[in-house]
Amino acid sequence: MKLWQKDASLDKEVESFTVGNDYLLDQALVKYDCLASIAHAKMLGMIGVLSKQEVKDIVAELNRIQALEQAGEFKILPDQEDCHTAIELHLTRELGELGKKIHTGRSRNDQVLTALRLLYRDQLQACRSAADKLVAALKQLAGRYPRVSFPGYTHTRKAMPSSIPQWAGAYRDALGDDLKLLATTDRISDQSPLGSGAGFGVPIKVDRQLTAKLLQFKKVQKNPVYVQLSRGKFEGIILNALAQIMLDLNRMATDLIFFSLPENGYLELPSEFCTGSSIMPQKKNPDVLELVRGNYHLVSACEAQIRATVANQISGYHRDLQLTKEPTLKGFATTLASLSIMALVTANLVVNKQNCARGLTPDIFATERAYELVKRGVSFRDAYQTVARDSR
Amino acid sequence: MKLWQKDASLDKEVESFTVGNDYLLDQALVKYDCLASIAHAKMLGMIGVLSKQEVKDIVAELNRIQALEQAGEFKILPDQEDCHTAIELHLTRELGELGKKIHTGRSRNDQVLTALRLLYRDQLQACRSAADKLVAALKQLAGRYPRVSFPGYTHTRKAMPSSIPQWAGAYRDALGDDLKLLATTDRISDQSPLGSGAGFGVPIKVDRQLTAKLLQFKKVQKNPVYVQLSRGKFEGIILNALAQIMLDLNRMATDLIFFSLPENGYLELPSEFCTGSSIMPQKKNPDVLELVRGNYHLVSACEAQIRATVANQISGYHRDLQLTKEPTLKGFATTLASLSIMALVTANLVVNKQNCARGLTPDIFATERAYELVKRGVSFRDAYQTVARDSR
Amino acid sequence: MKLWQKDASLDKEVESFTVGNDYLLDQALVKYDCLASIAHAKMLGMIGVLSKQEVKDIVAELNRIQALEQAGEFKILPDQEDCHTAIELHLTRELGELGKKIHTGRSRNDQVLTALRLLYRDQLQACRSAADKLVAALKQLAGRYPRVSFPGYTHTRKAMPSSIPQWAGAYRDALGDDLKLLATTDRISDQSPLGSGAGFGVPIKVDRQLTAKLLQFKKVQKNPVYVQLSRGKFEGIILNALAQIMLDLNRMATDLIFFSLPENGYLELPSEFCTGSSIMPQKKNPDVLELVRGNYHLVSACEAQIRATVANQISGYHRDLQLTKEPTLKGFATTLASLSIMALVTANLVVNKQNCARGLTPDIFATERAYELVKRGVSFRDAYQTVARDSR
Amino acid sequence: MKLWQKDASLDKEVESFTVGNDYLLDQALVKYDCLASIAHAKMLGMIGVLSKQEVKDIVAELNRIQALEQAGEFKILPDQEDCHTAIELHLTRELGELGKKIHTGRSRNDQVLTALRLLYRDQLQACRSAADKLVAALKQLAGRYPRVSFPGYTHTRKAMPSSIPQWAGAYRDALGDDLKLLATTDRISDQSPLGSGAGFGVPIKVDRQLTAKLLQFKKVQKNPVYVQLSRGKFEGIILNALAQIMLDLNRMATDLIFFSLPENGYLELPSEFCTGSSIMPQKKNPDVLELVRGNYHLVSACEAQIRATVANQISGYHRDLQLTKEPTLKGFATTLASLSIMALVTANLVVNKQNCARGLTPDIFATERAYELVKRGVSFRDAYQTVARDSR
Repeated sequence: MKLWQKDASLDKEVESFTVGNDYLLDQALVKYDCLASIAHAKMLGMIGVLSKQEVKDIVAELNRIQALEQAGEFKILPDQEDCHTAIELHLTRELGELGKKIHTGRSRNDQVLTALRLLYRDQLQACRSAADKLVAALKQLAGRYPRVSFPGYTHTRKAMPSSIPQWAGAYRDALGDDLKLLATTDRISDQSPLGSGAGFGVPIKVDRQLTAKLLQFKKVQKNPVYVQLSRGKFEGIILNALAQIMLDLNRMATDLIFFSLPENGYLELPSEFCTGSSIMPQKKNPDVLELVRGNYHLVSACEAQIRATVANQISGYHRDLQLTKEPTLKGFATTLASLSIMALVTANLVVNKQNCARGLTPDIFATERAYELVKRGVSFRDAYQTVARDSR
Repeated sequence: MKLWQKDASLDKEVESFTVGNDYLLDQALVKYDCLASIAHAKMLGMIGVLSKQEVKDIVAELNRIQALEQAGEFKILPDQEDCHTAIELHLTRELGELGKKIHTGRSRNDQVLTALRLLYRDQLQACRSAADKLVAALKQLAGRYPRVSFPGYTHTRKAMPSSIPQWAGAYRDALGDDLKLLATTDRISDQSPLGSGAGFGVPIKVDRQLTAKLLQFKKVQKNPVYVQLSRGKFEGIILNALAQIMLDLNRMATDLIFFSLPENGYLELPSEFCTGSSIMPQKKNPDVLELVRGNYHLVSACEAQIRATVANQISGYHRDLQLTKEPTLKGFATTLASLSIMALVTANLVVNKQNCARGLTPDIFATERAYELVKRGVSFRDAYQTVARDSR
Repeated sequence: MKLWQKDASLDKEVESFTVGNDYLLDQALVKYDCLASIAHAKMLGMIGVLSKQEVKDIVAELNRIQALEQAGEFKILPDQEDCHTAIELHLTRELGELGKKIHTGRSRNDQVLTALRLLYRDQLQACRSAADKLVAALKQLAGRYPRVSFPGYTHTRKAMPSSIPQWAGAYRDALGDDLKLLATTDRISDQSPLGSGAGFGVPIKVDRQLTAKLLQFKKVQKNPVYVQLSRGKFEGIILNALAQIMLDLNRMATDLIFFSLPENGYLELPSEFCTGSSIMPQKKNPDVLELVRGNYHLVSACEAQIRATVANQISGYHRDLQLTKEPTLKGFATTLASLSIMALVTANLVVNKQNCARGLTPDIFATERAYELVKRGVSFRDAYQTVARDSR
Repeated sequence: MKLWQKDASLDKEVESFTVGNDYLLDQALVKYDCLASIAHAKMLGMIGVLSKQEVKDIVAELNRIQALEQAGEFKILPDQEDCHTAIELHLTRELGELGKKIHTGRSRNDQVLTALRLLYRDQLQACRSAADKLVAALKQLAGRYPRVSFPGYTHTRKAMPSSIPQWAGAYRDALGDDLKLLATTDRISDQSPLGSGAGFGVPIKVDRQLTAKLLQFKKVQKNPVYVQLSRGKFEGIILNALAQIMLDLNRMATDLIFFSLPENGYLELPSEFCTGSSIMPQKKNPDVLELVRGNYHLVSACEAQIRATVANQISGYHRDLQLTKEPTLKGFATTLASLSIMALVTANLVVNKQNCARGLTPDIFATERAYELVKRGVSFRDAYQTVARDSR
């Protein structure tokens, strides 16, 4: 029995196809839907739809559901379709008629968005913390090797001397800019959709400011058509901010794989971070870095799916919007795991000073030699040509 | 304990990060890895690495694993990492020293590719069958309404008369072309990688023709460097063929949503195929079609992930290639489910002849009127201008 | 003769392949490279590399180049490869030895980034203005039809009553959020790369604060490795902000195509905004809206190209980064043109009040009827079922 | 004056926006549109719409247009919008009333598709030839160094010995599989759309077999709805086949950049294939390879644009389909140039035998050592552990 179900029963194959794995994904939303429903119930109390006692009973039951869920005892069934149905059915079973009133003044459309955005807020906060930890690990790495020079590359060819603090600082600054993007993303996403109904408001006067305040949203997303229009759009913006982080990790991982190539040996990954081969006994492979590298493409693909899904569609909810849920959750989980593992890797990186020094071969100082001529009065372009001739 | 493990223990967070959900995904590969290992064991028997009895014992045990798996009793554990480790450990546990010999003459690299390609072959065959069923349903639809005309659209504006058979025939032909692409895809993918080792052959003489024959591969993929280079490449080719099918379904679903719009009403979706709204009691929504539409973007994103993962990489295996497994499996599952549901939808579509006739408003015959003038000797361009003037 | 050329001449096919169409694209950068070179020359004067007179002469010549370019008389030749070479060669031809000194303390790497970011700043400002104009047009549209209700849709099915101001307000708010993203994007991109050399600094002490101030950059991008790392990254962030705008336009265009469908007729596009068919005399097609819709995918593809190009690469400049130039310029041009045309379309939209009223068929009021029962004390879920029964 | 124009003049900004750069792109189609129009005219002669003399006159004039175009003297003007209008206007200007008859029995929709597919056929043939040349260069490279071993890598770490012929053979085989895909692509695309009108046939009886035969199409694409549905679809299939080629070139270029890293030095790129730096006098950079690497992402983005543009759209022509023209042409041009330059690079590659030998360090033979134990009767897994212990 679903929220929208009347008497015609849904074709079984259609039912299974439309539900998909939504009932599994929604397990992560139970907590947030309870929080949102509590705020909604309190508001219904304030505007006189529910009595004080009814509010009290509903809130108690919603808190109980949260506790059950945390204990692994609140399981959404496939035929319940999603957490919203599961929760409303639970309330009706436990509270009778009262349960049938909880959906007053809302639609599943604004309800699911509310739960999702509460989850996004927590996840964005978690990403921020994880990024901060990586930034700290990078600073600490620079602090451990404050004066170690090693080759900088352009075109995958030695170019000019770089240093461990310079290299680590680059990724620190990149993450710093990502955090600015993340903050704006959070500011955009942190708007309360609750009370916007199915995208065209609800026919009773609900207090949207109150529910927004109870749920600590930064503001009410007033226009109900925009609420639905922002489904997929906000997720795309969030995923893009995550993808920017992942891009840094992708390049950092690629650097580490290259710098720790035994032929270079500037950096070393501890043995307990390396995996081996089933056929080649000598191998120490940087699988952890390769997976981080690949995770950028995973998160990018999640973003691409979302962005293509919503395009070429008229405004208003469409069921394919629901397909944006899985890639969003996956994008968060992948970014968090990748940030966390890279902080661990960074904290355990060993710089091989000898190899770094050995890598600074004479060719890498050609630009310096040209500038010595410049300091003696030669024009830069002529100095360049002179050194170039000598390099051959 | 993993196949490549020596004594250094892997950092726990690194272990969990690198294994990811691979041990769950690999459940689908147990059957295929057993089949491949049976062929490999038989070949090892032929070249004298295993005795006849050893081959017999190993084959028996591998068959038992398949039976266990089918009964849901062969579960890969997280610390086993993948099906290959789980199977080898099982063999060693049951058969002692003999189990340690099964990996002779192969690497996990060619082993996993062999299992995957056997799975691809089955899945491609399943896609072909599912596409055939949809083609049959489209033919049957055309047969049910052989003479029903309804408006054809260009620019989402009525253009000229079309018909149900013409419309259904378009998707039938599109799927026909997709099947050609699928056949070529299958022909490319159906090469035996077994015996190519980690990408550079193995140091003993294995009989690659024999294992290929036993596993009914169309040919041996001879060059071992190409075997590894084709990881991700073949998956991209396969996913693209699936995405072509999904594109047809996407457009077909979009057509059906538009043609069954109550304002048009040319087609009707039975009630048991429609879902409702949690707030609006009157709604009958084509969720099933919307999800099919969205699934195109899901499959496309799976393809995009694979194609971006393998680029800008030197040849030879990299661990991020493993991340191509999940999107490939998901691409197959999504395409199969979508083909199947669209065959069901097509079989149950009802054409509303009255609405079709009503839709054929006078403007849709403007081109015909111009051609009547052409038949009376007016040049086409002048006839066009004459009718255009009259249409205003 | 190129900046980096010594005596070995480059293979002709290689030269043509590597130059590509860069010399054409760079025409747009001449102005910005002159501005950056003027700041650089002034700084070289301040640190004593150039005399006051030399600075004066170089600045005068760079101003002359800008004037020539505006008059269409400064053309970059294919064998000059890019605007930087063309400008330095011009300076050396006109000023002799002095021209050979301008490249002191910089590399083409930081030089091109400086010119690009000055261009980005102007283009981002132009996008903001264009978005503001569309926002104004949407407000004005809402003001022209303050009380016109028309059907709101979910699942491409009539749902509940919406209104012109509600619809226009949704896109206004969406653009408002995009402008926040654009502002953050600008804040991230507006960092001075000048003086970071090829990614590892320059061997003489340059005053980066001074050039940044002269060019009105918000800050110096201090870490030179990050400067190169941000090539492609910043472009990706910018393109994503543009893509967010384009997504709104895509959906707005899709709405307009649907709402102006003659069968609906809620909105009308004036004749002088419609194109026709070469065969069907009656057609009035919304090509302009269809192209706006398609332009979202164009801009998204530009973004995708950039993001995939830079991934899986070690830090430091690579020549493929140059391929990010064309999609970035195209992304800007497409977004600007699309915003501008949509402001024009919006300003000229005609709402057909009669058709809007006619569209509000009884089914669209089902939710309201349920809420009338709620107001009379029926629980929402029971009220819903009652109205659902009556709707059948 | 456009083909579809009546008296209302198009808003100037709308006109400029809708025409875009189509009139420039269409220059490449003039030849093919003339060929298609000749076949169409001959067919109109056969079915009695044109007299023999009229056919002769039109064919002569169309041949003259082709000659003019080749001489650079047939320029499509912006207000003519596309080659089809330019050609029809030219015919009407030169041949009077007769020119107005050429559009009988066709629409611009099937006309443009016909010209495009004739171009695709030529371009696919050119790609095949270019791929063949690269295959030949790879074979020749293997032939020049038949016995040179050098390190094979997995995880960007030395793994086991590989060889120049093995490496070259991998890309040869990959291109071989791509050619199969290209052949199927050609077979799918090579269907005649001429006579299908705007997607719903034409109201007079045209002989589609005849025009198909005259234009040497493999078959008639019978279903007119499918003809329009395949716009964008076929382009996507073609671009995907090109992208598969580009993926090989991407990985081959990445290999070459890595193998020619001075630290490895297995391969050398001649000086006249390398470019330099504007600041670092010593640099020899593999720009040509980096651009080939980047071109994969360019072609992939072209494909992505096309595939996203057509999705979520009902069947029948939409103007955004026209935006698929530029990425298709760009995809062909980029693939052709990349194949050609890689054949040149391959032909000029120098293998440094000394560095190859020096690269074969002892660790690379660990697997061989394990197999020596296997040959002496140790189980593979125990042999592996023994060698692993010795490697530490």
